[in-house]
Amino acid sequence: MKKDVVEVYKELDTLVNKEIVLEGWVRNHRKQKEFGFIDFNDGTYFQNVQIVYDSQLEDFLEIQKLRVGSAIRVVGTLVSSPKEGQEFEVILKQLEVLGDSPEDYPIQPKRHTREFLREQAYLRPRTNLFGAVFRVRSACAMAIHEYFQSHGYVYVHTPLITTTDCEGSDQMFKITTLDFQNLPKDEEGQVDFSKDLFGKCAYVTGTGQLHGEAFAMCYKKIYTFGPTFRTENSNTKTHANEFWMIEPEIAFCDLEGLMDIEEDMLKSVVSYVLTHCPKEIEFFDSFVESGLKEKLEKLVSSKFVRITHHDVVDILKKADVKWEFMPDYGEDIAKEHERYITEYFNGPVFITDWPKEIKAWYMKVNEDGKTVAAVDLEVPGAGELMGGSQREEDYDKLMTRIKEMGVDQNTVDWFCNLRKFGGCYHSGFGMGFERLLIYLTGVDNIRDVIPFPRTPKSCDY
Amino acid sequence: MKKDVVEVYKELDTLVNKEIVLEGWVRNHRKQKEFGFIDFNDGTYFQNVQIVYDSQLEDFLEIQKLRVGSAIRVVGTLVSSPKEGQEFEVILKQLEVLGDSPEDYPIQPKRHTREFLREQAYLRPRTNLFGAVFRVRSACAMAIHEYFQSHGYVYVHTPLITTTDCEGSDQMFKITTLDFQNLPKDEEGQVDFSKDLFGKCAYVTGTGQLHGEAFAMCYKKIYTFGPTFRTENSNTKTHANEFWMIEPEIAFCDLEGLMDIEEDMLKSVVSYVLTHCPKEIEFFDSFVESGLKEKLEKLVSSKFVRITHHDVVDILKKADVKWEFMPDYGEDIAKEHERYITEYFNGPVFITDWPKEIKAWYMKVNEDGKTVAAVDLEVPGAGELMGGSQREEDYDKLMTRIKEMGVDQNTVDWFCNLRKFGGCYHSGFGMGFERLLIYLTGVDNIRDVIPFPRTPKSCDY
Repeated sequence: MKKDVVEVYKELDTLVNKEIVLEGWVRNHRKQKEFGFIDFNDGTYFQNVQIVYDSQLEDFLEIQKLRVGSAIRVVGTLVSSPKEGQEFEVILKQLEVLGDSPEDYPIQPKRHTREFLREQAYLRPRTNLFGAVFRVRSACAMAIHEYFQSHGYVYVHTPLITTTDCEGSDQMFKITTLDFQNLPKDEEGQVDFSKDLFGKCAYVTGTGQLHGEAFAMCYKKIYTFGPTFRTENSNTKTHANEFWMIEPEIAFCDLEGLMDIEEDMLKSVVSYVLTHCPKEIEFFDSFVESGLKEKLEKLVSSKFVRITHHDVVDILKKADVKWEFMPDYGEDIAKEHERYITEYFNGPVFITDWPKEIKAWYMKVNEDGKTVAAVDLEVPGAGELMGGSQREEDYDKLMTRIKEMGVDQNTVDWFCNLRKFGGCYHSGFGMGFERLLIYLTGVDNIRDVIPFPRTPKSCDY
Repeated sequence: MKKDVVEVYKELDTLVNKEIVLEGWVRNHRKQKEFGFIDFNDGTYFQNVQIVYDSQLEDFLEIQKLRVGSAIRVVGTLVSSPKEGQEFEVILKQLEVLGDSPEDYPIQPKRHTREFLREQAYLRPRTNLFGAVFRVRSACAMAIHEYFQSHGYVYVHTPLITTTDCEGSDQMFKITTLDFQNLPKDEEGQVDFSKDLFGKCAYVTGTGQLHGEAFAMCYKKIYTFGPTFRTENSNTKTHANEFWMIEPEIAFCDLEGLMDIEEDMLKSVVSYVLTHCPKEIEFFDSFVESGLKEKLEKLVSSKFVRITHHDVVDILKKADVKWEFMPDYGEDIAKEHERYITEYFNGPVFITDWPKEIKAWYMKVNEDGKTVAAVDLEVPGAGELMGGSQREEDYDKLMTRIKEMGVDQNTVDWFCNLRKFGGCYHSGFGMGFERLLIYLTGVDNIRDVIPFPRTPKSCDY
């Protein structure tokens, strides 16, 4: 009977010495004079299945020609395996090639560089590394949905196309149906966006937070999980122009409550991935980041530290370290500081109450008038994983901040009005999904945790 | 102790006659001389909670001033309710206004038109109708993830920004970081896209299918679930320029197998929504589409009909109906035909084997050389809900179709190459998420099932 490999593992006891049919691909093929071994994988399970055949088979010579990458149907007998690290193997009875693969198939069973594989983005999930990365990506997405849905959050699809900040920010892509070669112009020679599909200049968004807040003011607890766009012309390991974000927003929740949620959520997601992707995590632990599994297990059972930005700077100033950037009470903290502080506390650290000048306009100003109720979560090895804040719920104070920070009030009018119509204390945070994946897999380049990454000058496939 | 209303329902037995604290919003306020009744809702449960207070309270007169829309904190005693259709009510001890709401708050406890509420998109989830719609949207999204994940599918985030079809299709939005007022030009006076962020003209995509197939050729079973964009300048009830799609793709799966999956998935999702949103479905059944609940329950237990396009046309031709569009073997079927055929079979109908001329280039041509192995699922009341096909796995046949249909081969090169590297028979389908929501809720305008809809000339908030 036809089975996915993942099903075979679940039903192993009943399948031993039975005939099974598998369909999948040849990952490797080792030929001997009288025998052959096919490393078979159908993509439903990390580990290959060993298919054994011998010269007794009528089409032995034909089978020996089988090339790596080919799609095959296998009929064989499942037997307990004598080989260590493998629970069973399949003694081949019959093999059919469903789709051939050429001699120069790019994904050969050898070590390829990640740079080479990036150029083969449509084939690279067929390797152990990327097969594991994108399975973890899928499981991790599910973990996030499970956490929020089981805690009563409503999932909101905030819009990607937006006209907010039309005249402003360079951070957003413009989107249009106008013909670039024949842009319509108005009487003053300006581009006439009234001819565009939406009748005005439109953008693709960099955040769902503002729209998320509107829904939190109704459902109490909401989250977004969708793609996000930034135009940054930056070629670093942590920047991509298209990535996914999770942005929960919670009414009747203060900063302490927000940290409780962030901590609980992260532990739940990490536990889920440890449980659902044990083979993948072992693989990363062995071949990508030594100690990864222990790091993740430790996170689940640890208590995250909570400390103010001010006290962090105290610690940094006292540290016997030659800083590249001198820590200061009114300043952001640098990557070297993040690293020091997570090592100092030997675990995740919530840093709260940041100088208001370096944080966003919608964050709640503390009673000191100098800091805002913001919180960044720093984790060992990956730096900032989440950023959140209590939001300013007072309309007048929000207006003051909007003027101070030079925000165009017209574009956020409706958002501010939420404060007039039954506003309340509320908080939210954002988590970059790829940042989380980098933390979970040890793979340190954002290009390698996105199926088809988009970065400056690079938009292939 | 502080509780979400949804928690109160779960713990009702232990909470009776206990003091509880609730935080949420005033949906209605009915005042009498000696009494008052507040319809309270915190967004975690469809039904309002009745808060009862009387003139014994010290701040009785103050409380009587409470306006609809206000955010409040309530301390009171939970008691079994004497009123029909309500399991409990809360006897008020103490009330605190957290956020006031003005006399002219737009969402008053009366019937508003859907057109008016569309203009209040950021407030409309506070109404019964939209509160129910967007909770069902969230539950339905989770149902889809649960179905595919529990059946071993890998969730793939296919890219939204793409350079595929750069010179062609009017169906896609162009995306750019160039300055519209100062477009860089090359020597021939053409727009110089080498100056754009990606170094070429880029688009936002209308489908994840091609990228999904690449991942199916590795994981066997994958699905996408993400936003999709179309530039159609069409103001109908079923068109939006931004919507969400689910696109599963399955290797080693033929058309019959695909229909099995579609049927199983749809029944599972409908069951999930019936179980998780019973109050919402009852509400739609009473106020939006009479008979909705029965329709959904019937779908779960029915066996979907499978019939060829040819045989459908036979039935249509024999029907004693004056058609606006005459049914024909070589033609698409019209909305009136869809309606007739689902009524004829009194349930969902898979229509298979369509004339190849009216279907996409990547669909597998049947042995007759005239039809393709495509399938549309038609459901009573909502028409086409899913469209899928077995894909052409033969490289040469695919090339023939590409030429016949005038597809730009360069832009789909890598996709075609999947046939060379261990290609296999495989199938997939697409389901518009909003189409499914229209079917599930009875709400018939796509603008009313999307949180912030984007349609021609309309891109507010």
